[in-house]
Amino acid sequence: MDKFDMKKLLQDVASGEISPEAAELKLKIKPFEELGFAKPDYHRGIRQGIPEVIYGEGKTPEQIVKISKALLEKGQKTVLITRLSYDAANYVKNYTKLKYYEESRIGIIGEIPKSNTKGIILVITGGTSDMPVAEEASLTCEVLGNKVKRIYDAGVAGIHRLFAYSEDIMKAKVIIAIAGMEGALASVVGGLADCPVIAVPTSVGYGASFGGLSSLLSMLNSCASGVSVVNIDNGFGAGYLASMINHIGGN
Amino acid sequence: MDKFDMKKLLQDVASGEISPEAAELKLKIKPFEELGFAKPDYHRGIRQGIPEVIYGEGKTPEQIVKISKALLEKGQKTVLITRLSYDAANYVKNYTKLKYYEESRIGIIGEIPKSNTKGIILVITGGTSDMPVAEEASLTCEVLGNKVKRIYDAGVAGIHRLFAYSEDIMKAKVIIAIAGMEGALASVVGGLADCPVIAVPTSVGYGASFGGLSSLLSMLNSCASGVSVVNIDNGFGAGYLASMINHIGGN
Amino acid sequence: MDKFDMKKLLQDVASGEISPEAAELKLKIKPFEELGFAKPDYHRGIRQGIPEVIYGEGKTPEQIVKISKALLEKGQKTVLITRLSYDAANYVKNYTKLKYYEESRIGIIGEIPKSNTKGIILVITGGTSDMPVAEEASLTCEVLGNKVKRIYDAGVAGIHRLFAYSEDIMKAKVIIAIAGMEGALASVVGGLADCPVIAVPTSVGYGASFGGLSSLLSMLNSCASGVSVVNIDNGFGAGYLASMINHIGGN
Amino acid sequence: MDKFDMKKLLQDVASGEISPEAAELKLKIKPFEELGFAKPDYHRGIRQGIPEVIYGEGKTPEQIVKISKALLEKGQKTVLITRLSYDAANYVKNYTKLKYYEESRIGIIGEIPKSNTKGIILVITGGTSDMPVAEEASLTCEVLGNKVKRIYDAGVAGIHRLFAYSEDIMKAKVIIAIAGMEGALASVVGGLADCPVIAVPTSVGYGASFGGLSSLLSMLNSCASGVSVVNIDNGFGAGYLASMINHIGGN
Amino acid sequence: MDKFDMKKLLQDVASGEISPEAAELKLKIKPFEELGFAKPDYHRGIRQGIPEVIYGEGKTPEQIVKISKALLEKGQKTVLITRLSYDAANYVKNYTKLKYYEESRIGIIGEIPKSNTKGIILVITGGTSDMPVAEEASLTCEVLGNKVKRIYDAGVAGIHRLFAYSEDIMKAKVIIAIAGMEGALASVVGGLADCPVIAVPTSVGYGASFGGLSSLLSMLNSCASGVSVVNIDNGFGAGYLASMINHIGGN
Amino acid sequence: MDKFDMKKLLQDVASGEISPEAAELKLKIKPFEELGFAKPDYHRGIRQGIPEVIYGEGKTPEQIVKISKALLEKGQKTVLITRLSYDAANYVKNYTKLKYYEESRIGIIGEIPKSNTKGIILVITGGTSDMPVAEEASLTCEVLGNKVKRIYDAGVAGIHRLFAYSEDIMKAKVIIAIAGMEGALASVVGGLADCPVIAVPTSVGYGASFGGLSSLLSMLNSCASGVSVVNIDNGFGAGYLASMINHIGGN
Amino acid sequence: MDKFDMKKLLQDVASGEISPEAAELKLKIKPFEELGFAKPDYHRGIRQGIPEVIYGEGKTPEQIVKISKALLEKGQKTVLITRLSYDAANYVKNYTKLKYYEESRIGIIGEIPKSNTKGIILVITGGTSDMPVAEEASLTCEVLGNKVKRIYDAGVAGIHRLFAYSEDIMKAKVIIAIAGMEGALASVVGGLADCPVIAVPTSVGYGASFGGLSSLLSMLNSCASGVSVVNIDNGFGAGYLASMINHIGGN
Amino acid sequence: MDKFDMKKLLQDVASGEISPEAAELKLKIKPFEELGFAKPDYHRGIRQGIPEVIYGEGKTPEQIVKISKALLEKGQKTVLITRLSYDAANYVKNYTKLKYYEESRIGIIGEIPKSNTKGIILVITGGTSDMPVAEEASLTCEVLGNKVKRIYDAGVAGIHRLFAYSEDIMKAKVIIAIAGMEGALASVVGGLADCPVIAVPTSVGYGASFGGLSSLLSMLNSCASGVSVVNIDNGFGAGYLASMINHIGGN
Repeated sequence: MDKFDMKKLLQDVASGEISPEAAELKLKIKPFEELGFAKPDYHRGIRQGIPEVIYGEGKTPEQIVKISKALLEKGQKTVLITRLSYDAANYVKNYTKLKYYEESRIGIIGEIPKSNTKGIILVITGGTSDMPVAEEASLTCEVLGNKVKRIYDAGVAGIHRLFAYSEDIMKAKVIIAIAGMEGALASVVGGLADCPVIAVPTSVGYGASFGGLSSLLSMLNSCASGVSVVNIDNGFGAGYLASMINHIGGN
Repeated sequence: MDKFDMKKLLQDVASGEISPEAAELKLKIKPFEELGFAKPDYHRGIRQGIPEVIYGEGKTPEQIVKISKALLEKGQKTVLITRLSYDAANYVKNYTKLKYYEESRIGIIGEIPKSNTKGIILVITGGTSDMPVAEEASLTCEVLGNKVKRIYDAGVAGIHRLFAYSEDIMKAKVIIAIAGMEGALASVVGGLADCPVIAVPTSVGYGASFGGLSSLLSMLNSCASGVSVVNIDNGFGAGYLASMINHIGGN
Repeated sequence: MDKFDMKKLLQDVASGEISPEAAELKLKIKPFEELGFAKPDYHRGIRQGIPEVIYGEGKTPEQIVKISKALLEKGQKTVLITRLSYDAANYVKNYTKLKYYEESRIGIIGEIPKSNTKGIILVITGGTSDMPVAEEASLTCEVLGNKVKRIYDAGVAGIHRLFAYSEDIMKAKVIIAIAGMEGALASVVGGLADCPVIAVPTSVGYGASFGGLSSLLSMLNSCASGVSVVNIDNGFGAGYLASMINHIGGN
Repeated sequence: MDKFDMKKLLQDVASGEISPEAAELKLKIKPFEELGFAKPDYHRGIRQGIPEVIYGEGKTPEQIVKISKALLEKGQKTVLITRLSYDAANYVKNYTKLKYYEESRIGIIGEIPKSNTKGIILVITGGTSDMPVAEEASLTCEVLGNKVKRIYDAGVAGIHRLFAYSEDIMKAKVIIAIAGMEGALASVVGGLADCPVIAVPTSVGYGASFGGLSSLLSMLNSCASGVSVVNIDNGFGAGYLASMINHIGGN
Repeated sequence: MDKFDMKKLLQDVASGEISPEAAELKLKIKPFEELGFAKPDYHRGIRQGIPEVIYGEGKTPEQIVKISKALLEKGQKTVLITRLSYDAANYVKNYTKLKYYEESRIGIIGEIPKSNTKGIILVITGGTSDMPVAEEASLTCEVLGNKVKRIYDAGVAGIHRLFAYSEDIMKAKVIIAIAGMEGALASVVGGLADCPVIAVPTSVGYGASFGGLSSLLSMLNSCASGVSVVNIDNGFGAGYLASMINHIGGN
Repeated sequence: MDKFDMKKLLQDVASGEISPEAAELKLKIKPFEELGFAKPDYHRGIRQGIPEVIYGEGKTPEQIVKISKALLEKGQKTVLITRLSYDAANYVKNYTKLKYYEESRIGIIGEIPKSNTKGIILVITGGTSDMPVAEEASLTCEVLGNKVKRIYDAGVAGIHRLFAYSEDIMKAKVIIAIAGMEGALASVVGGLADCPVIAVPTSVGYGASFGGLSSLLSMLNSCASGVSVVNIDNGFGAGYLASMINHIGGN
Repeated sequence: MDKFDMKKLLQDVASGEISPEAAELKLKIKPFEELGFAKPDYHRGIRQGIPEVIYGEGKTPEQIVKISKALLEKGQKTVLITRLSYDAANYVKNYTKLKYYEESRIGIIGEIPKSNTKGIILVITGGTSDMPVAEEASLTCEVLGNKVKRIYDAGVAGIHRLFAYSEDIMKAKVIIAIAGMEGALASVVGGLADCPVIAVPTSVGYGASFGGLSSLLSMLNSCASGVSVVNIDNGFGAGYLASMINHIGGN
Repeated sequence: MDKFDMKKLLQDVASGEISPEAAELKLKIKPFEELGFAKPDYHRGIRQGIPEVIYGEGKTPEQIVKISKALLEKGQKTVLITRLSYDAANYVKNYTKLKYYEESRIGIIGEIPKSNTKGIILVITGGTSDMPVAEEASLTCEVLGNKVKRIYDAGVAGIHRLFAYSEDIMKAKVIIAIAGMEGALASVVGGLADCPVIAVPTSVGYGASFGGLSSLLSMLNSCASGVSVVNIDNGFGAGYLASMINHIGGN
């Protein structure tokens, strides 16, 4: 809970501008909406200037529509829906205008805003198969107002392909390195870059990749400094964090 | 085996009211019925005052019908069937009146009894996707005669949503905390409550959640006291135990 | 945070009995003490009527002495210290009177209170080697004011040993079932009892017990209802929860 | 390779009854048939008096037919096919007379022989859902000439159900104990019986059963003596070993 | 509980030879002794003709002495103590005559009986480092009255070493195959033998042997029939089961 | 990056034959083609004399067609596509002449070259079910210009089947040993052969094979020298490495 | 390799200021020093303005002294040595002035520089036992020129302790959240903060914490956005990344 | 068993030069020596021209001395002992002249032979801490008659350090790539080299390296072709295989 809000509220109570009962109520009902099955969080959106996001997995199409409407009614201009299935997307389209990106299972209601930062977020993948995760990350960055440069299929087994983009690596303000299999991309990029590298292990691979475990462990054990890791296939989380860092220090 | 029964039986044998052979038979045949593929346990139901429950997974619809009939014939008023598939539910409906809850895959034959306790069981989930497990827990509680208060989608990432219900948390006699992903809900609720908290990890999540392992381990390692854990997605087990605790000390 | 406290505080602020600044301060400083390396939680102790407990592992003897002193100065009569090494216990004894139980690594400052409940907590172990965990549980129960009945080495491989105590099992208000290796004790006891069973897997075993994993998984998958699980070797957690349940419904 | 055969062969070579080249050839070609994709092992069948068995998983229906024919042509009277899918069974039926057991995915060509032993193999399961594995074990035993007694759904949570069959347990020459979930059945049966107990963990369960891992570990850590374990769901392996033991000491 | 005993007891109660109270007492106190920290099981020993065994791990030397005395006082002639540390052995020697085998950490009080069987138990290891486990198995077999043939360091990488003993393999009544690392010994021996093979994975190895996991999994997945598995390093369990099988069919 | 190339380039720059800007460009654009979603690596192909290979998994049929065309346009005569689904193969056939091997999911555009080596690569499998992986390995070897000898279903449980091929084992220049389940084949073959053995664990098996983990660990822990391991089911990787070794020392 | 350097070098070669051979040499020898057992990386230090760091684990004291000297001779003012054992620290002190922090096993040669940033890095721990990792992180931040605010023992089980510091959380530019056991701290802090949160799981805990696995998985699955994770106990990595982010946007 | 030997033997038997009994004996006793606790394999040594090696772990110093003597008496000139502890080495020195390498725990009796190959084996490590494993590999190669080039501490985080040695990488006949932590070295080297790369994961690291699991999985999932993997820390196995490959095609 926001400490300044609480102080202000206490002062209002002290000055009689608001009653203790009303104050208590306010503390409870303001920051989110009770939909029964969900409690969309307005508080965070307002405080952080980042539009509320809907995680589509495990929600029914009906629930997604209801949450979207609640957000739009509160004045949110763009609604990002991640992990949205093809069928659910079609259902949502019956109720509102939705742009759907099938490969990354991203749905966007409203416009992608113009970039409001000078810094560039570089999104690199080890292989072609990592693209769905990469697009989830890239689109998240763009919805949150960032410029994105995409470099796909630049894995370390043909490391000259990566070095061809060394200028992009040196100039990025933050890098998202996405790879399955052995996940070595994060360490190599981390050693070349002087900006934060967000590593995203993917479930791409077979056998001893164990659903992404191999690249996850590889990235967590990176001997390169400046590298941190998000969950397997978590393109959204990487994009969100990258945007947060990209917005530091003015734009 | 119930010791008092055995003592009584021995006394009856001693007094000649029952022969040793009959006594031996009684020990064997009374407490369950032999259906070949299953042995429904009447003993427990009678002793504990809790209606026998059918675990539907891995049983054929035919087997479920046969067990249900055996229970109803023994005079059981309400039969709870968990993990009942949609198709099996439809099959069962051909033979008996069944109320089916698709989201939680719960089937109920007979009426849900009125609550016979004053205490309230609070069922809280971290997210919307945990609802199937939560409804399995809540319906189990209700079938076993408890009042239930549901709070869904109150995860710790927007912790003010949880605090808005702190009065419910303080007043509950027992709490079921249900969460996937990082499962932090159990620890936070455990720290706020002064009653037993039954933590239910769910398989909600992806990547490094490894089918619920992350929330399971998180809940087992809870630094809050008064928290114990049941199997991943085991809403029924949590509901059963919650009911047991809720019935302690008279109702 | 205790909701009633907050409401009271807001009313005091509204009535002018306390200034907003003072109220804010109070919210911050009351419920715990800042020792730098630790923040002993007075709030919980006061609210729940349960004396504060010190987890000794990973704390220096000096830190343990300082926290103990802080608690005693606040008027706490009995201080329970778990996972206290033999050497740390000797160090603490230089500063305060401490009773040390080496097998369970429990230290107690002050007196163990008389039991204030009628219900009995039954502590059963599968083997002799589970005794350190069992004593941690039993002593925790006793420090928290419970009557405890101990039954050690009653594993399921010689199940008649367990049945000899069926009367104790039937009469207990709550049972703590402690076992390493295959952990089958929890399921068998859970099937015999009609009260909550808290299962404690232990790290007793070798080879494929993998440090307690085998009994942990076994207990989590118990087909008996009314069973929940705490962390491997967590005798304290089981004792704390058992005491909580044992105090339900008056004593 | 059979040592006596080798000695005999060497003697024949020495005596000139057979040439070295022929001897070498014999060593190579006798004991199996080369089908290219498979090498059915006649050697073992002849030596051990046990009909050759076909593991159906991962073989095409065509391959299964070809191996069956080769075995029948060699004079084998009964062919047991395990893990045979419904579709493959129907394919095989086009070429030979096959009795198919859908639940256990067992196919049998030829007659099940009469039992040639006095000893009884007891097959016990913890639940109804373990029946497919139990039937795989039971049918294997029967094909190999054993008497089988089946007791299904006798799990330890209602342990009186198991005790009702204590006479069967005491009289068996070998027991196959089959259970998923926590797998405690093996330990309890192992403690009651004085014959070898072959434990079969099953993949029955959910969540923290991790595909049978929980019962596998439980059974491996059994504190009961005389218990050994085969692979998860390996009903065939248990049946084969049980038959081997049951045939010891004359029949 | 022994069914025949129970029937007899009931008849005695019926005939008035024994009172119900006495009968009940008898059921409780006969089959084991209550030492507080342990409950040595006389019942099993009497019923199965196998001397009671003490698992030394996790027991104090004092406890081991007390249990040994209790067993000797009951008339047991030989007491086998497994996992007995060097120091504990020396402590025990102060109270009774003990023969200690340091490599296998086995202690034996009393004489090893003469073999009472014709069958031979073959104990084979993959390497020299598996000898402690192999000796635990071999000594257990000998204490239980079996003839043992030892073949150590016959791993499959130099398979001619194994074949040199093919006559022993063919003549054994039961085989204990002990190996760490890749545990392939069990499959190869299982393919050569026509008797039950008890596979014992050992924790010998390093790196990806993960404390014996590799050989455990290898043995569980053995494609040879007639192979079952006990816990990692469980020489005692293998020896006990081998003796049980070796005594089948008269001796 | 090829050091000799770089030196040559620097000399050309020094001599004025090429400008620094052009040199820099060359370093970047030469060795691969930028298709956006993929960067086929011409550099490696040219340097190592091995045709570029397409890993079909996770690529759309459209992407596979585009990469194939790019390779063919660069003059590559044979294109090997691994992990190519049946549907994708049919799509590709619309655009170019493709030979598709359904069992191993291999697609080949162009001709399989004549063998250019004297050495023979031996491909052995433990069972029939390992054939898809074995064919992936064998076809890869053949596409890369090697002679291949296939021996399928020669697992260690019937070890005489393996010994019948001991001459092939002794004569091979490199061996690929492929097995699921317990993976013992690699150790036994490794002990018989005096050439490098590439072990390929497969996901064939069930239960405790955990998707190939058992054979993977078994092979990694092989006590036979000269054995190394590739990923589970990685027939291509084994074939590629085998070809590399087979081409050493002239052909 | 720094692309601008390479271009400059090529231009120098083109202009004849440097010969191709010398250029090639330069590319090789400049950026690091060859000590045989180690290759300290001057290149990174110079490029990123961050002093080179020595990871002490697995290095002999002699090696540490040699690397330190090489760095100091190159003009580096402060040398940070992590994972430095007490004994190694004493050895190093014989050769150079070293300040040693025993709890965090950090050694520092030279002065800790004044902070050159306005932003504050907040380091929060769940418990007292996490302090060694927290101090590794905090000291790393300070050596790299950052202001650090420490809040230790603020775990979520007594969440009011955390909320007392909500002002610090709101004002931080980057937060390092350090916790063992269930690791829920990261999610709760992540939900309260609007800056990047670097989560550090620790190996603090026992039983099912499996050496830090529980908190690692918990943090990777955090439902709070803006959270990323480094290796278990990797205080240094968190501090390094935090400093990198804290220096973004001028200081 | 060597097929040519067997044929020869059969011919000798046929010609009467040797009796069947003698032939049988020969087959058994020739290829190894029976020491009871060990069976040193002369067969392999003679056949493959590689001196027999002693794996010291888990063997007593007395056993090591006995095996060494047996080998020396058979005429072996150099005996390599791996995993030899410092204390065991000192014991062995009492009986024979031994050169001991403490870092790699290698002991060598006799002289390291001159290299008999033109090809060079390149041994590269990611860090300084990998040196013990690297020296085990390097010394093994040298004992087996190979030229070795060592490059230590060339991890991918400072990839220019690796590129400085690209000429060595291009010229090697076989490469051993050794790394702990994320193990990315294998993939990067594999992408640069055109010879077989043997990857050795090491247990260097902490936390989520899980004893070498992270680098093991990383290397198994390498996207570079021509890479295969041996057990964690298995320097000897890598050296042995490298020597085998290095000797292909004449020297």
